[in-house]
Amino acid sequence: MKADCPAVWDLLAEYGALIDTAKFDEWLDLFAEECRYQIVPRENFDRGLPAALVFCDSRAMLEDRIRALREANKYNIHTDRHVIGLPRIAGDGLMVEAPFAIFQTDQEGETRLFATGLYRDRLEILGQRLKIRDKLILLDTFAVPTLLATPL
Amino acid sequence: MKADCPAVWDLLAEYGALIDTAKFDEWLDLFAEECRYQIVPRENFDRGLPAALVFCDSRAMLEDRIRALREANKYNIHTDRHVIGLPRIAGDGLMVEAPFAIFQTDQEGETRLFATGLYRDRLEILGQRLKIRDKLILLDTFAVPTLLATPL
Amino acid sequence: MKADCPAVWDLLAEYGALIDTAKFDEWLDLFAEECRYQIVPRENFDRGLPAALVFCDSRAMLEDRIRALREANKYNIHTDRHVIGLPRIAGDGLMVEAPFAIFQTDQEGETRLFATGLYRDRLEILGQRLKIRDKLILLDTFAVPTLLATPL
Repeated sequence: MKADCPAVWDLLAEYGALIDTAKFDEWLDLFAEECRYQIVPRENFDRGLPAALVFCDSRAMLEDRIRALREANKYNIHTDRHVIGLPRIAGDGLMVEAPFAIFQTDQEGETRLFATGLYRDRLEILGQRLKIRDKLILLDTFAVPTLLATPL
Repeated sequence: MKADCPAVWDLLAEYGALIDTAKFDEWLDLFAEECRYQIVPRENFDRGLPAALVFCDSRAMLEDRIRALREANKYNIHTDRHVIGLPRIAGDGLMVEAPFAIFQTDQEGETRLFATGLYRDRLEILGQRLKIRDKLILLDTFAVPTLLATPL
Repeated sequence: MKADCPAVWDLLAEYGALIDTAKFDEWLDLFAEECRYQIVPRENFDRGLPAALVFCDSRAMLEDRIRALREANKYNIHTDRHVIGLPRIAGDGLMVEAPFAIFQTDQEGETRLFATGLYRDRLEILGQRLKIRDKLILLDTFAVPTLLATPL
């Protein structure tokens, strides 16, 4: 079964938009029940080092993570903006890569570049919906001070 | 009647490109005769405060605005670059949201992040063409010193 | 013969991704045998000045260029991230324009905006594949200190 391009693009766009509007329950719902979510510094990945900054291998684990982030966010108030660039789609539309830039705005209203990197996703089709089975986030910036405050 | 995705993407891309090349007459022509154009700080929007930084509720008003901007631009010379991220499309293809980052380059050739935010557009189909009926620009950065120099 | 939109988007995305992963041979293979690759400061282009920062009018010349860049890169170690925004497609799908922002991360792990600009490509269809016949890169920033280190 093949995913069509607009549906894949839409899933990526929704992924970013739901973080930016802090709709984390809907964001979690983009993932399949069995899923994996990892943030790996690109440098580690390129050298074959497995160390991840964040590693969740089930949705339950990801839910825990989000709960912790919400706590952390009380003390690090900012808003996010994901700008996701043109993606590459392969493997019957179920493998997708997209570069991203995330900007953060603080309470003084100043917006800064926060992080850039690449999403590398494996999707699956569940009924009528596309879900994320495996999300690998290759992070260009390993030196992210406030990394934990929101998911990437 | 349903808008197709490539036409919607194209309209968004054209919107940014026409500002970046300062083709403001063609840019105005992307809007329907009856239209609304608003820039609202995201913070105000989230709190349900209606105060807009810019509010135009007809194309005539938008034309006036653009004329004023052209005057202002004589004293604030820079070029813009809109990078518009993957959009979400809903409502028969006539509701569309897209995140953006705008960069400005000054006369010394230095490029800086200017603003980030989200376009939230309602489109309509007029004959063979898509037009913008309602454009809400949620601006992450409320502290934009040179906000008035070009439309977002 | 008409190119379809997803294929054009994919070519643009691949163009950026191959530079970002330093796969320069595959990157070169995106160009037609007879091709042109130019980087022109936007200011020069707008004034009708022909001076290019980089001008290659064959793939052999582009290959030489890449070889030189690889040497240069030994002394300027960084990684690139291309975020390519929504493109405009015209001319039977073979003329395409897309804005871009390129970010660089240095060895200390700090990510900075490197350059923004616009790709203006003419494509051709060779057998089953799209190739780049003419790539004009309008660079917003004429003041790029490390311009030579990787292709844009």
